[in-house]
Amino acid sequence: MKIDLSELARLTGGDLEGSGDAAIEGAAGLSDATPRDVSFLGNPKYASQVKASRACCVFLPRSARTAAARNQEGPANRIYVDDPQWAFAQVLALLEKEMKKTGPAVVDTKSSVHYEAKLGSQVGVGPYSVIERKAEIGAGTQIGAQCYIGADARVGAGCLIYPQVVIRENCVVGDRAIVHSGTVIGSDGFGFSTDKATGLHRKIPQIGNVVVEDDVEIGSNVSIDRGTVGSTRIGTGTKIDNLVQIAHNVTIGKNCFVVSQTGIAGSTRVGNHVILAGQAGVIGHLTIGDGAIITAQSGIMSDVEPKAILFGSPARPHREAMKLQALMGKLPEIYEAIREIKSKLGLGRGPRSREQREHEDAKQ
Amino acid sequence: MKIDLSELARLTGGDLEGSGDAAIEGAAGLSDATPRDVSFLGNPKYASQVKASRACCVFLPRSARTAAARNQEGPANRIYVDDPQWAFAQVLALLEKEMKKTGPAVVDTKSSVHYEAKLGSQVGVGPYSVIERKAEIGAGTQIGAQCYIGADARVGAGCLIYPQVVIRENCVVGDRAIVHSGTVIGSDGFGFSTDKATGLHRKIPQIGNVVVEDDVEIGSNVSIDRGTVGSTRIGTGTKIDNLVQIAHNVTIGKNCFVVSQTGIAGSTRVGNHVILAGQAGVIGHLTIGDGAIITAQSGIMSDVEPKAILFGSPARPHREAMKLQALMGKLPEIYEAIREIKSKLGLGRGPRSREQREHEDAKQ
Amino acid sequence: MKIDLSELARLTGGDLEGSGDAAIEGAAGLSDATPRDVSFLGNPKYASQVKASRACCVFLPRSARTAAARNQEGPANRIYVDDPQWAFAQVLALLEKEMKKTGPAVVDTKSSVHYEAKLGSQVGVGPYSVIERKAEIGAGTQIGAQCYIGADARVGAGCLIYPQVVIRENCVVGDRAIVHSGTVIGSDGFGFSTDKATGLHRKIPQIGNVVVEDDVEIGSNVSIDRGTVGSTRIGTGTKIDNLVQIAHNVTIGKNCFVVSQTGIAGSTRVGNHVILAGQAGVIGHLTIGDGAIITAQSGIMSDVEPKAILFGSPARPHREAMKLQALMGKLPEIYEAIREIKSKLGLGRGPRSREQREHEDAKQ
Repeated sequence: MKIDLSELARLTGGDLEGSGDAAIEGAAGLSDATPRDVSFLGNPKYASQVKASRACCVFLPRSARTAAARNQEGPANRIYVDDPQWAFAQVLALLEKEMKKTGPAVVDTKSSVHYEAKLGSQVGVGPYSVIERKAEIGAGTQIGAQCYIGADARVGAGCLIYPQVVIRENCVVGDRAIVHSGTVIGSDGFGFSTDKATGLHRKIPQIGNVVVEDDVEIGSNVSIDRGTVGSTRIGTGTKIDNLVQIAHNVTIGKNCFVVSQTGIAGSTRVGNHVILAGQAGVIGHLTIGDGAIITAQSGIMSDVEPKAILFGSPARPHREAMKLQALMGKLPEIYEAIREIKSKLGLGRGPRSREQREHEDAKQ
Repeated sequence: MKIDLSELARLTGGDLEGSGDAAIEGAAGLSDATPRDVSFLGNPKYASQVKASRACCVFLPRSARTAAARNQEGPANRIYVDDPQWAFAQVLALLEKEMKKTGPAVVDTKSSVHYEAKLGSQVGVGPYSVIERKAEIGAGTQIGAQCYIGADARVGAGCLIYPQVVIRENCVVGDRAIVHSGTVIGSDGFGFSTDKATGLHRKIPQIGNVVVEDDVEIGSNVSIDRGTVGSTRIGTGTKIDNLVQIAHNVTIGKNCFVVSQTGIAGSTRVGNHVILAGQAGVIGHLTIGDGAIITAQSGIMSDVEPKAILFGSPARPHREAMKLQALMGKLPEIYEAIREIKSKLGLGRGPRSREQREHEDAKQ
Repeated sequence: MKIDLSELARLTGGDLEGSGDAAIEGAAGLSDATPRDVSFLGNPKYASQVKASRACCVFLPRSARTAAARNQEGPANRIYVDDPQWAFAQVLALLEKEMKKTGPAVVDTKSSVHYEAKLGSQVGVGPYSVIERKAEIGAGTQIGAQCYIGADARVGAGCLIYPQVVIRENCVVGDRAIVHSGTVIGSDGFGFSTDKATGLHRKIPQIGNVVVEDDVEIGSNVSIDRGTVGSTRIGTGTKIDNLVQIAHNVTIGKNCFVVSQTGIAGSTRVGNHVILAGQAGVIGHLTIGDGAIITAQSGIMSDVEPKAILFGSPARPHREAMKLQALMGKLPEIYEAIREIKSKLGLGRGPRSREQREHEDAKQ
């Protein structure tokens, strides 16, 4: 497959500087690209890599289209676009279509589809998948091999469910969802009532479900628990990375990012356009405001204002947390300064004088 | 399904105030409940939600049965019980039984059960499950679809093993266990002997097993490694949440909670009634005393006394850690105070004077 | 199976002190060993356990072969070797071979192998496994039950792929790899281009692959994402523990340890012989130098020098981080000292005097 550069410019709505007849056959990052690839500058801080790139052509932001740029080293062919990353993504989509030519969707004869399940048109079901009683699969959805779709579950239209996904009974997945392998939607929430007399933990039945709205992508090995009663809900357009834990009755809004290994405890409500970076943790029954950003490894123990940026465990506003981190690095200085001052003032040698310490310890 | 309130009161051993003839059809949290639902007050801090609830009936603690309460707004029907959460759980159990009416247990013809495996009475095996040679499954246990039970493994009676669980060879699961999808019991421990000359990591065979005692529940996508020799052991009544890592030769006592994404490294011994909150980590070869509580995201690097409550990474006693967190927030004040004092004393402007700093840096 | 001690000494290249005719039937840790087991001293700090051990025979380091040692209590039979842990591992390998006597490798009739897939000699494929079009499996490799090997994927020779592993299309696994259950190799990277106008996250196709080199072991429930373009790469001899997240286009060098629940974000390059301890996190686009050690729960936010040892979130050099942790514990002392000094100097009672505080707060 060859795509010539005038076609690329047309496809991405960009302005080509260079040879429209040249063609690319692949796509790669700036430093890996060969003279047969197109590449892109996604972040201005990598601009120096453009000069060194061997790419046939590079997508650049329109703002970079200056006289100075024209004389720079680097790929002779440039396409100026509004969003170089998105232009690049569109090329990848073309290449992917070429790579993944698939035959017509079929329900594999080595699958187990209950006769009361309802499959829309053009539904594919891979080998050894199980679709239970009264489950519904929307038109054009592809269920990979070895998946399990529980009774009364509903999966929308145009979804891509990769091999070895479990969607438990009564759960609902919207249209155009993508769910990666190893993910479990609808396992029981972690709910127990501890008997005070015996210390035994008695199971609280978890009879709710999970509702995944439209256009959601869920990574591999994710666990999303069903509500105790009612639903655990993932809002439209939200993207969830691998190995994430979402507890019972959590609500996540629209267009959020939940990055890998993050955990959200029960009944917490996450707003829209929230970013939870990798390995973040949020305790239960909280509210995270719209547009908040929780940075990596942070631990959230109280409600978060809209658009707040938090860092640390327990988390503080990002600027404050960074300042405190810097001051923590000065603790040796601080400690030394106090010794010096106390010595100067005749108050003993350490932050507490020996007399004070002995006196206070004796009282304890 | 309708349950009238006099029946509810009888079932839960509670005292009904209101109409015994009224009936509920479902159950929900206070704010989601409709006039057809029963709800409950689990935590006094949500008492204000009772007033606003539209529930038909609400379970309240006996201590709330006061004259003042009688005149409060909120659901007209109240059932006073010892433990409202547990009363609610009993209703959920009824509703669940109604929802999950299942047919008789069968061994699906699309499963692969070795002729030397031993299945008790009323055992169910889902499609595409594999039960290997000499594995034993106790009476009444339901093995979901696409499970793998290795050779010589034993699963007790009355267990519920959800789809896509792996229980590797020789592992043992007690009676009434519940294991959720994606969980792996008995993967190899992470054991290597590094050759000092070459830096190569040589595998140490992991020939032990995992023993899960009775009444244990294990969430989805959990990894429990087999012992190098001997057993990794999960004590009776312990409940493990999703995405937890339990390394080889760990021993967990009875009635513990191991919350989501916690990791416990090799050979650590956890006592009884211990709580490890979400994303906690415990290094190897430690002992955690009975009744200890490790709060979320804490990192445990030394033995823990019984009933200790720890927080932080590395963890400290909870009160101390909280106090230090508060003082950390005062670091800017502290730093400023030192500047002020040094200035007053003519000791330079910062915690270290410029002269000092240059002098000391020169020495390094 | 019995192994006599002279045979054990020969097998491990050790020097036997004791009875060559005595025999062991099993292996165990020092405190668990019975008089039918061999044990070993792996770490000098457990030397006292040797005395109390009931083992028939114990592997000791050559350095422990002193006259004093000869008269110590403990197992009468000792084999002095260069590396007691490795000697013990060799015994485990013998015992394992005895335990796991397996029949000839077969392709189970209840599997789905595409007619254009290429299987080497002695390849085993378990029931309900799927091997897609043009996938290649090297000689002697065992694919467990319920595995999924995607189109054009290649798995090398002599591999052990446990049940319920997913290796997606085009991914490559080298020779002698071991992959545990629940692991997903080649799920899509977490790549989205957010439309600034609408806030919608548009998927960037992930058309690269994963390359796992030779002699790699990967634990259970691990997620390794495919490159956006190009490869995510795991170097020869590297060992990855359970529940680890490796994002798109990460490169990990040779002979690394990546311990449980660690996450590595996109495009980060990890050198050779690096250790990432449990629950560590590394943000994207970083370089971790050869031989670096990242301790448990650390958060890496900038490049790491070769052989650096880091701790904390955000991480600092280990010695510094430990010193700062100790000084953090002195914050109450520091705070008190400042009050004392300010009082002495007539500067008010707290680190900030009340006047100062009111004045400053008024300005905000």
